[in-house]
Amino acid sequence: MDISSLIQKNETKIIFIILDGVGGLPVNGKTELESAYKPNLDALAKSSACGLHIPVSYGITPGSGPGHFGVFGYDPLKYEIGRGVLEALGLDIELKKTDVALRCNYATLKDGLIIDRRAGRISTEKNIELTKRLSDEIKEIDGTEIILKSGKEHRFCLVIRFPENITEKEAMVTDTDPQKEGKPPLEPEPLNEESRKVAEVAKKFIERAKEILKNEEKANYVLLRGFSALPPIPSFEERYGLKACSIAVYPMYRGITRLLGMENIPVEGDIKEEVEMVKKAYKDYDFVFLHIKKIDSFGEDGNFEGKVKKIEEFDRFLPEILSLKPDTVVITGDHSTPSLLKAHSWHPVPLLINSPYVLGGLVNAFTERECFKGELGVIPATSIMPLVLANTLRLKKFGA
Amino acid sequence: MDISSLIQKNETKIIFIILDGVGGLPVNGKTELESAYKPNLDALAKSSACGLHIPVSYGITPGSGPGHFGVFGYDPLKYEIGRGVLEALGLDIELKKTDVALRCNYATLKDGLIIDRRAGRISTEKNIELTKRLSDEIKEIDGTEIILKSGKEHRFCLVIRFPENITEKEAMVTDTDPQKEGKPPLEPEPLNEESRKVAEVAKKFIERAKEILKNEEKANYVLLRGFSALPPIPSFEERYGLKACSIAVYPMYRGITRLLGMENIPVEGDIKEEVEMVKKAYKDYDFVFLHIKKIDSFGEDGNFEGKVKKIEEFDRFLPEILSLKPDTVVITGDHSTPSLLKAHSWHPVPLLINSPYVLGGLVNAFTERECFKGELGVIPATSIMPLVLANTLRLKKFGA
Repeated sequence: MDISSLIQKNETKIIFIILDGVGGLPVNGKTELESAYKPNLDALAKSSACGLHIPVSYGITPGSGPGHFGVFGYDPLKYEIGRGVLEALGLDIELKKTDVALRCNYATLKDGLIIDRRAGRISTEKNIELTKRLSDEIKEIDGTEIILKSGKEHRFCLVIRFPENITEKEAMVTDTDPQKEGKPPLEPEPLNEESRKVAEVAKKFIERAKEILKNEEKANYVLLRGFSALPPIPSFEERYGLKACSIAVYPMYRGITRLLGMENIPVEGDIKEEVEMVKKAYKDYDFVFLHIKKIDSFGEDGNFEGKVKKIEEFDRFLPEILSLKPDTVVITGDHSTPSLLKAHSWHPVPLLINSPYVLGGLVNAFTERECFKGELGVIPATSIMPLVLANTLRLKKFGA
Repeated sequence: MDISSLIQKNETKIIFIILDGVGGLPVNGKTELESAYKPNLDALAKSSACGLHIPVSYGITPGSGPGHFGVFGYDPLKYEIGRGVLEALGLDIELKKTDVALRCNYATLKDGLIIDRRAGRISTEKNIELTKRLSDEIKEIDGTEIILKSGKEHRFCLVIRFPENITEKEAMVTDTDPQKEGKPPLEPEPLNEESRKVAEVAKKFIERAKEILKNEEKANYVLLRGFSALPPIPSFEERYGLKACSIAVYPMYRGITRLLGMENIPVEGDIKEEVEMVKKAYKDYDFVFLHIKKIDSFGEDGNFEGKVKKIEEFDRFLPEILSLKPDTVVITGDHSTPSLLKAHSWHPVPLLINSPYVLGGLVNAFTERECFKGELGVIPATSIMPLVLANTLRLKKFGA
């Protein structure tokens, strides 16, 4: 149900912590959470409502976008973020409603065929040099502003900024990547009448880039993918009546939370610096989101011990966070990243909600297997925010 | 799924007991159910299928209407009862399909502005006197019958009875309560073409009431809210093939169950008298609904000990009920009402289904925390009735 109609505001404070990719799988019998020494998290779990959440659906492994959308109560099957938009967010580009974002590759074209879709994985330095050249020479096309930003190796991001707002439908243009080497690049084709103008700008961009890059040995062509505009998303304030801020070190998560209308608190460093920032921002917001990235990074690297150590490091900072005495604390992940898989996974994610209005006493530790004994059960990620709002008494009764 | 197509009738008997607001939260470590001495309920739970139900959705606190609709298998998001209809049910008015019901306030009007939306909370006695005067003087408007009934203090109920059936759409008229003092009252505005006639009668009622009340010091005006007609609801007989009766002391619950086509057995008193009535009615019905109100009342008052005692009182009568040897017994609540919150809450509600066809042996007591260990898990309220029908072998196989 749409809970916006039940929202009532009050003075309560919520701290919402994502330990990115925290869920894991056993290696030698124990998961990362089961192996970590984390007395503070375990003590908190004992007095909290615990359970696990399913980020998208049974068996579905979420990317970072859907993973975060779900836990923030935005159905990831309804609010899909385009690939280009995600790429732009990851490169810290502040997108506007007038933008179409694309993720692009430098590629090698020979005799009209793409012979290397990644231009021999050119160095990031080379990428920066080429992207600067393109930026300097292509500033506008057909009245649109052209914004380029280098990624790693052969990847870069293109944003076409129109003078007017752009709908998702207007951005529906096909990829130009032929997906296989030895084939000609594809034309950017509009998928409907309204997307013709975007396709037209894209065609001209490709032609001009080709001309500028023609003397490059490897990176003499560009492939465009993931044409997308910002989806219409109600903000946290509109949807929940919450003044929210986001404390995250990585651009991707700053970008995702900015899409939801959370204010980004600038922060560099790691857990220590982020927790300092939580303490500074706390008084000014109803909802403070803290994103801890590196637990996921170690999982992705298959570094079981590194992931355990990062969980333990977070545990040491937990008392500082709790000393702020927020009315409700949530700790969970956006998805699982078992070191065993070296990747995101579909597994349910441990979840803890602490407030004065929980039963508690059902689990002994914050681990995957203990959380199955908790009072929340296994729930869809989108149910977390209604529970958080209920626990802070921010939801009115439904019906009389 | 719609289970109506699977219904098969037989001679089994069901007793369905709602302990209103039975779920709670710990105070000094224990909930009301955990604190109560209730050997009979606990013994029954040990041999029953136990679990908890979510009345509406995660985090959503239901009113009495949605709470009961859910456990009776009517999706509360689909079958919404209007505020006026609920008010009428609570005052024991037998509504017909030809009625529009409204909840009204006496108010104070001065120089065209509402200066007190509750007419200084006049006494109930004064309300009765004024409502009688209005009733005597306004018997019909535009061919409709006007039915009035006093509530408490400044509240009363107006039913406009038309000669023909009224749809929910025809009752869609805006409230006249300006919600803030110092503003003029609003006009009752029809929200569509079909609701004009209802708005017209309402306008005339306001004018006539104003004239009749003009010499009153405080209650010289009326405000109308919650215009609503009966929603189209299939009866228990139509939906489940069950001949059902309802044993409830409070008008609200008699009214809600009457909406579902249950026969109301008149009863006054408390648990003792109600159980007597269960024994009398038992042989004549397939489904006997017993509603125990006061557990919720103590919860709403924040009276932990009172709620505990009421649960214990019910426990002493349970053997009498079980001695009837019904094929299936259900015991649950329509929602939780933790004394700690002094209000309805969103928490899952303990649930017990006893029949010869359960596993049993999984829980040691009928409490919130024990029920999490039960074989039913945490289920939507609307899943209870299919389980009850299955346990009485009243559902045919689905598919071949």
